[in-house]
This record gives sequence, C-alpha cells and structure tokens, in this order.
Amino acid sequence: MANLRIGLAQLNPTVGDLAGNRALIIDAYRRAVDAGCDLVAFPELSITGYPPEDLVLKPGFVRDNRAVLQELAALTTRCVAVIGFVDVGHGHDPGSGRPHLHNAAAVCANGAVKSIHHKRLLPNYDVFDEERTFEPGRGEHRLIEVGGVKVGISICEDIWHPDGPVSEQAALGARVNININGSPFHVGKLAERERMLAQRARDNSCAIVYVNQVGGQDELIFDGASMVFDARGNLLARSPQFVSDLMVIDVELDSPKPSIVAPIMDRAEELYEALVSGTRDYVRKNKFTDVVIGLSGGIDSSLVAAVAVDALGADHVHGVSMPSRYSSEGSKTDAHELAAALGIDIRTISIEPVFRSYLDVLGPSFEGRDADLTEENLQSRCRGQILMALSNKFGWMVLTTGNKSEMAVGYFTIYGDSVGGYAVIKDVLKLDVFAISRHVNERAGRVIIPESVLTKPPSAELRPDQRDDQSLPPYEVLDPILSLYVEQDRTASEIIELGHPEDVVRRIARLVDLNEYKRRQCPPGVRVSEKAFGKDRRLPITNGYRG
Amino acid sequence: MANLRIGLAQLNPTVGDLAGNRALIIDAYRRAVDAGCDLVAFPELSITGYPPEDLVLKPGFVRDNRAVLQELAALTTRCVAVIGFVDVGHGHDPGSGRPHLHNAAAVCANGAVKSIHHKRLLPNYDVFDEERTFEPGRGEHRLIEVGGVKVGISICEDIWHPDGPVSEQAALGARVNININGSPFHVGKLAERERMLAQRARDNSCAIVYVNQVGGQDELIFDGASMVFDARGNLLARSPQFVSDLMVIDVELDSPKPSIVAPIMDRAEELYEALVSGTRDYVRKNKFTDVVIGLSGGIDSSLVAAVAVDALGADHVHGVSMPSRYSSEGSKTDAHELAAALGIDIRTISIEPVFRSYLDVLGPSFEGRDADLTEENLQSRCRGQILMALSNKFGWMVLTTGNKSEMAVGYFTIYGDSVGGYAVIKDVLKLDVFAISRHVNERAGRVIIPESVLTKPPSAELRPDQRDDQSLPPYEVLDPILSLYVEQDRTASEIIELGHPEDVVRRIARLVDLNEYKRRQCPPGVRVSEKAFGKDRRLPITNGYRG
Repeated sequence: MANLRIGLAQLNPTVGDLAGNRALIIDAYRRAVDAGCDLVAFPELSITGYPPEDLVLKPGFVRDNRAVLQELAALTTRCVAVIGFVDVGHGHDPGSGRPHLHNAAAVCANGAVKSIHHKRLLPNYDVFDEERTFEPGRGEHRLIEVGGVKVGISICEDIWHPDGPVSEQAALGARVNININGSPFHVGKLAERERMLAQRARDNSCAIVYVNQVGGQDELIFDGASMVFDARGNLLARSPQFVSDLMVIDVELDSPKPSIVAPIMDRAEELYEALVSGTRDYVRKNKFTDVVIGLSGGIDSSLVAAVAVDALGADHVHGVSMPSRYSSEGSKTDAHELAAALGIDIRTISIEPVFRSYLDVLGPSFEGRDADLTEENLQSRCRGQILMALSNKFGWMVLTTGNKSEMAVGYFTIYGDSVGGYAVIKDVLKLDVFAISRHVNERAGRVIIPESVLTKPPSAELRPDQRDDQSLPPYEVLDPILSLYVEQDRTASEIIELGHPEDVVRRIARLVDLNEYKRRQCPPGVRVSEKAFGKDRRLPITNGYRG
Repeated sequence: MANLRIGLAQLNPTVGDLAGNRALIIDAYRRAVDAGCDLVAFPELSITGYPPEDLVLKPGFVRDNRAVLQELAALTTRCVAVIGFVDVGHGHDPGSGRPHLHNAAAVCANGAVKSIHHKRLLPNYDVFDEERTFEPGRGEHRLIEVGGVKVGISICEDIWHPDGPVSEQAALGARVNININGSPFHVGKLAERERMLAQRARDNSCAIVYVNQVGGQDELIFDGASMVFDARGNLLARSPQFVSDLMVIDVELDSPKPSIVAPIMDRAEELYEALVSGTRDYVRKNKFTDVVIGLSGGIDSSLVAAVAVDALGADHVHGVSMPSRYSSEGSKTDAHELAAALGIDIRTISIEPVFRSYLDVLGPSFEGRDADLTEENLQSRCRGQILMALSNKFGWMVLTTGNKSEMAVGYFTIYGDSVGGYAVIKDVLKLDVFAISRHVNERAGRVIIPESVLTKPPSAELRPDQRDDQSLPPYEVLDPILSLYVEQDRTASEIIELGHPEDVVRRIARLVDLNEYKRRQCPPGVRVSEKAFGKDRRLPITNGYRG
C-alpha cells in the first residue's frame, strides 16, 4: 500500500527578505524531517515572498534568490523539499534583452536541486501582474518519483483550469499533485478553492496537496488553509486560517482516511482575522512596534483600535481624542470607554487652538467668503497633522480609520482623516463594519465597542448636528450601489435598470469617479473583497466616462 | 504612378470621454475629406483615449465605445478612416466568463465598418498592462486596398518587432503600413522611434505611416511627432511634438519626395514642453482652470510656476509665500521677483502662528523631548494645509513642487510639501531641474527665474542654516546613483562595484527603499524618464531586500 508522509509548510515569508525566508524554510524543513516526512512543500516563491513585484526586474535580486536556493538544496537529505523561487530561463526578451524569468518550483533532495518546474499559467488580472515579469513554462511535464509514487508539481494558477497542467500531469501518471500557492484572500474564497480542488482531484483521480502562504504583504493577505484531498476529492486535511503552520499528513493512496481538518471561520470572523493579520504583518514587517489611532468615538476608529490591539497588544496601541467645538459629549465619552475596555492609553488634544490659528492666518484671503467644506477639511487636517506629529516624535505608525463606503464616495478629507501608514478597514463597506464590530464584542464575551457606538447615527462632527445621512444616502441604500459600481463593474445606467433610484445612482457614480484622485493618495490597507481600491481596481483619474 | 493622400490625425483625446473623442474624430475626418485625403488615420484606441485601463472591464463602457464606432462609420464617405477602438472578440475567458477584448483598428468607409484589425503584440511591461485587459489578435492578416494600393494595418507594439506583423503584412504585399499609436513619451524616445521606423520601412520595402496621440493622461504624456517614411526608410514628414495636428501628405509610392518635417526639440526643450503639456492636460481634463503653488524662493517651485504659466496662463496661476522663522530674506525676495517676472499674483501667509499653536497643543505630549524632524515636518505640513485651504476655498488645484531626487530619497514631508493634485517635476532629477530652469530663461530671452535661485545652495529652510547637502550628498553625486538604482534596476552592491562610494550608495539605496510608502501617497505627475515612480516602477512597500 503506497503511503507518503507529506509536510505542508504554511509559511509567512517577507517579500525581499531572502535571509529571513531562508531561515523560515530551513526551520520548517528540519521539523518536517524530524516528523519523518517523505516530502515537504513550501509556498509559491517562498524564497522571495509573494508577490515580489518589480523586485524581480533587478537581475541582482534574482541572482541572490538563486544563491539561496542552492544553499537550501545543499542542506536537504532524503526528505524531498519543493521550494518556490524565481528561475532564469534560456530565452531572452527581444525588446529589453533581459533573460526570461520563471515563477518556479525546485525539487531538492540529497544535497541538490533535482528538477525545476515552471509555472505554466500566469495570472494577469485583478491583483496579479505575473505576465509583467514572468514567462510561462512550456514543453513536456516532468513528474518526480517519491517513495515509488509518481508526483506532479504545479504552481497556483496551474490548478485552476480543468484542462490545465494538473490534468496533463495526471494523464502522465501522477497520483499526487503538489500545488504550491501564494493565493490571496478575499472573503468567501476558501469555499471557492475547496470546491475547485475537490473537483480537480476527482476528475483526475489524483490526490492534491495544496500549500498556501500565510500573512500580509502590503494590501494582500494570504489566509493559509492549506489542504489535502484524496483522489476521490475527499478533504483529508486542512491547516488553520491566517496562522503559520506545518501540517504533516500520511497520504495513503490506496485507502484514504480523514485526518486533521481545521474548522473554517464564519464571514465576520474571517473578515476580522484578515484585518488583524494584515495589520500585524504590515506594521511588524515594516519594523514598527506601536501604532497611534485618532479615536473619534465613532464605529470606524473603534473597530480599528480593536483590530490593532489584537494585532499588536494593548501596550502598543495609543489612542488620541481630538475634540473640536463640534464634538459631542457622547463621542468623547465613547472614545474613553473604548480605550478603557481595550486597555490602551488615550490622550486628549483639542484642535481648537490650531484650527483658530488657521482661520486667523487665512482670514485676509477668505474675507467675504462663507464657511464651507474648507473649514470642515481644516479641522480634519488639524487632526491628521497632530497624529503625524505624534508618529514622528514617538515612532508610532498612524492607523487610518476610513471604511470602503467613505473611500468610494470621497467622504473623507485628503491629508486629514486619511493620513497614516495603513488603512485597516479601507476595503470594508460600512454595513460590514457594523457586523464585524458586533463580532468583536461577541468574541470577547463583553462590551469592547460601546453599545452607543454601535447604535448612534454616524457623523463626522465637523459642523453642528452633522450626520452622514445628510450628505449620503443611508448605508443600506449606498452599500449595494457601491458593490455593483465598484466591485462588479456595472455602469450607472445598468444599476438604474436593476431598480436602484436614478438620482442616487448618478450622484454616487459621479462621486466615485471624481474621488479617484483622493483614493490614489491614501495609504494601503487590507484587501478583503473581490475588488479592492488600490492594486485591484485600476481606473484612470482623468476619466470622462459618465455611463 | 501610385499616389495616396493620407491624413495623420494627431489628436488629444480624453480617456473615457466618448462624446468628446467622437467630436474630435469627426472634426478631423471632415478636415481630411476637405483636404482630399484618400485615408485618414487616428491614434490607437482613439475612441476611448489611451490608456483606458480598467474602464474596459466595464462591459457597458465597451458597448458604448462600439456604439460610437458605428456612429462614426455611418458618417464616412469615400475617404477611408482608420479608427482605434475596443473590440469584443469571439472567445471567452474561462475563469471570469468575460468575452475577450481586443485593442483594435476599424477601417471605415462609405458609411460602414469595412474591416477590423486586432493588435497582435500586447505590451505588458513598464507603464503598459495590455495583457491585463486584452487578448492578442491571431490568424491571417487582412490587407485593405486604397486607390489600388495594398495597405497593412498595425497597432503600436506591432511595429516594434522586426519579424512581427508589419513584416508579415509586407510579405503579403502591403506597400504601405498604417501604424496607429498611443506611444508615451520619455526623453529621447523620438530618436529611438525614428531609427526603428526607418529600419522597418527599409527592411520591408514598405512605406510607414506612424500616427501618435498627443497630450497628457494622468502620469503619461504623448508627444505626437507622427511620421511618414517611404519604402527606402527616408523620413518624408513629421508632425510637431506635443500639439494636436492634422498632417496631410501625398505618399507617392514610386517616387517619394520629402515633405513637411517639423523640427525636433533638444533635451531641455523637450522636457520642458512635456511638463507643460502634461500639466495643462491634467488640470484642464480634470475641469480645473486655476492652480496654486507654494513659492519658497527655491528652484523647484520656481520652475513649476514657470511651467504652470505656460500651461494655463499667468491669470490662472496663484503663488503663496509662506515664510517661517527660518526663511531667509533672500528666499522671500526671490519668490516675489519670480512672481513679478511671471506676472502672477502672490500672497504672503506666515506659518508662524499655526506652527506655534501646534507646538502648544503638543507641548504636554512632547515634554522632555528634544526638537527633531517632527518640528521640521510640522512646518512643512502647515504650508501644505494652507495650500489645501486655498484650494478648497477657491477651487484651485495645488501643484506639487518636489523633484525626482527628493522623491527618491524621501527628502520631503508627506502631507506637507508633497500635497497637491499634480506633481509637475516628480520625474525630473535635480540636475535636470537646473538645466530646464536655465532653458526657461533662455527661451524667454529674459530673467524669469532669478539668477540667485539658479545659483544658491538648495535648502529646505526648516531649521537655522539648513542646506540640502547636510542631509544628502551633492546632487552631482546623488543623481547618478539614483539613476542606476531607480531607473536601471541595479543593486547597491553592483553600484558600488561600478566605483561609487560604498557608504553613500548603501545609505541612498536604503533611503529609496524606506521611502516607498511616502511616494505611494504622492500625487501623480508627468513621466518623462524611462522609469518613473508610479505606474512604472512597482516595488513593494514591505520589502526586506538589501542587495
């Protein structure tokens, strides 16, 4: 009875950190050897981290990554290691003269690289730009043999196409396919992957070992959840989501039996954990320890503070309340209650004196003009500037608190509430902000985010009695329109045809278009949807389309 | 003797503005008909503007663009129009189920679309992402016949490869190739294009009609300079750079003769005109009329003001001098002299009162801490906030004044001097800023930028007696290192091997890497180099590479 003991090394590499990633790989390899593995698989491009973007256009970087591969190969023993790296091909680009690069997997054992496998299908959509830097692999597939079993090697996208490399390798006799991934998270994607992998296994009568990266890289978050399917499409094992893991499983090819299947999270939990992981990794991988957050007493900043505490620990999160003449007592109280519930420090810095100074020095220029958005923006920018001053003085990264609904319609002040290093909930629509905030209290089993924060009408508090719904439709109306316009590429006319109110749709679509310039200057943040602003949705700023 | 009268419609479309672009095409078509043209060629994707980016992922937008093509075709008479548009193919993407899209040229005449030609070679490097949205054309080439002459149709990249579509079409008998382009400018590119086109014509014994777009689109600027070559590779005609144009030329296929060859610009002039065009189009296409610029008395803001006046007119440019306790008398005087020479208004708003207010409200937090970069950044942000307040109140776009050397090493304050809608010289290294500034005075034949501005040592004036060369190496040392590291993808180690001082190179490389997060939040600006920050150089923020 053929049996392979396989390790799935669900690592959290850092892009570009070749020495750090090498250390992670060596550590997991040793543990896999100790566990008696026949083979251990590492994620896609595990030496460079995924995605390395234009770093691979530096020939020196590619050379260094290959040197690391040689070092790793030299350390291998009987246990086969499948390691993702950037390979240099034989061809050249006719225009630039550069050698072709490949997104590749090296099979290493007994001190050497035994074979190299190039990714055949290169994703070049959504957040992916692999055709920018890589050439697809071509030619005959080479299977490897481990413990007498024929094994196919594939990389991420290779497995998503029913008639693609995995089928071809099965046709050549592969009984197991090792599929290494850097597959970014969006909410609900795990179920999608699982369905596809089960079908791919079943259709090809081939067991599938799916290894994914974990952790955050700029806007992307990788959720892990590495999986093993038997040749009938049964899920044998799954690693947990969002944490590093080395799962060891005996794939008994003739009589499969279920093994360790980590539970999967519900929607709010999954979103929350994605925000926590993304924030933790962005802050730490960029060598910060502490963050500072402007606490308005509103739900957005409350949720961001809760995420930050889970990501970094309460001692590393600093709150600032920055009241103005328009701040309600309730908001000030709520901010302090939140800080107390989270156990973080909070200081109060009034923006009144600086706001008044600005009005003074601008007085001669503004003479005879009514107050308008200018004065609202000024207040927001005073707050932004105070946060940045604290950031500069104490080395704290500012976390930005705007949500996706606001980002979409531009209901924020550029250089004001949008300042910061990382925008934690920029890809979360407001209705989801409410859902995730309730989850925060539920998982804690006590009130973290005060009830009044969850129930009071949202307001920017930049003029007397201001409320979001004076400027925007209720979020129950707004969010579905945004989802259609922003995430599903529908035109305004099409959304109106679907039955949404014409005047609202036209106004919202126009706001989304007009505010592209503001979004372009916003900090990165965790991508959790299928189409996030940023790397994902690439619309021009100068854009005359009004369809 | 075969003779074709050909119009080259060097248009300045606006991305997405289907109605506006249609009007431009109709106007040029009518003028071409009046001039007796047999054929008139419009730029690549002239209906949508180039590059439309993810707009084409909206099926409604693609539908609307095809409707415009039908309207245009219906207007055509005997004169053949070659029009760029987005075509829908027969295939589908297996993943998304979307129909394939093609970057296409329609040949229209006598009221109908006669044939459609798909771009074969899709650029997906540098600033190009065409494989993200388009499928390459395949299958047999179809030639068209105009006045008894066989004509090939190709699109941009198609002509850059010696064995590509243009050769294939020549082999099929094409005696003229109509090559429509959206070819972005970088300094010196015109000479490169000209060499390539001459060779392509010669190698294939085929006349070439190269039509380019003109004008700015976000970071890209298109320089026009449409050209005609005879079958021996002689340049018969060239449109001027950077301006809309309809050039009409008789291509006498059997006995070519030189025609209108617009002169080409030297380096400083070309750079200057690119900055002017990019700024004018970004401001106007985004429906602004006026701009505001912080005038420090330094060379960067002086050059930006000069560019703005040429782009928009002196009445539409507003200067602000914002002195602090550290501003020298000379700088204040220089700013006023510049404004007088340019004929623009200038107001003075001291930042001292607001700066002091910030120090006051931050006092309790900063107690016991020494002054450091925080206080310098605060001053810069006071200026940024005043500029934004003027922008908000009067509807003026802020023009940002940082140069590429500063952008590279992060020698600017995020949310401070980096605020604005458009960063005019963000892709110009400091040494080029000097060269272009001298050109400004030369072309005017009088002093626009005061001599003292051209000669005094650069300073940010954020602390007593500050000079750039206290923090940075001299620009004569810095700029060549930046060019290697940023524009030529060399690693620090490689640059040291080339003989640059190790400590300087290591420090500069580290600064470039560390400041990726700041650049990411900067406004767009004119791309004039072969590798600009922004759309062009896509490095991760989180990046552990130190090679």
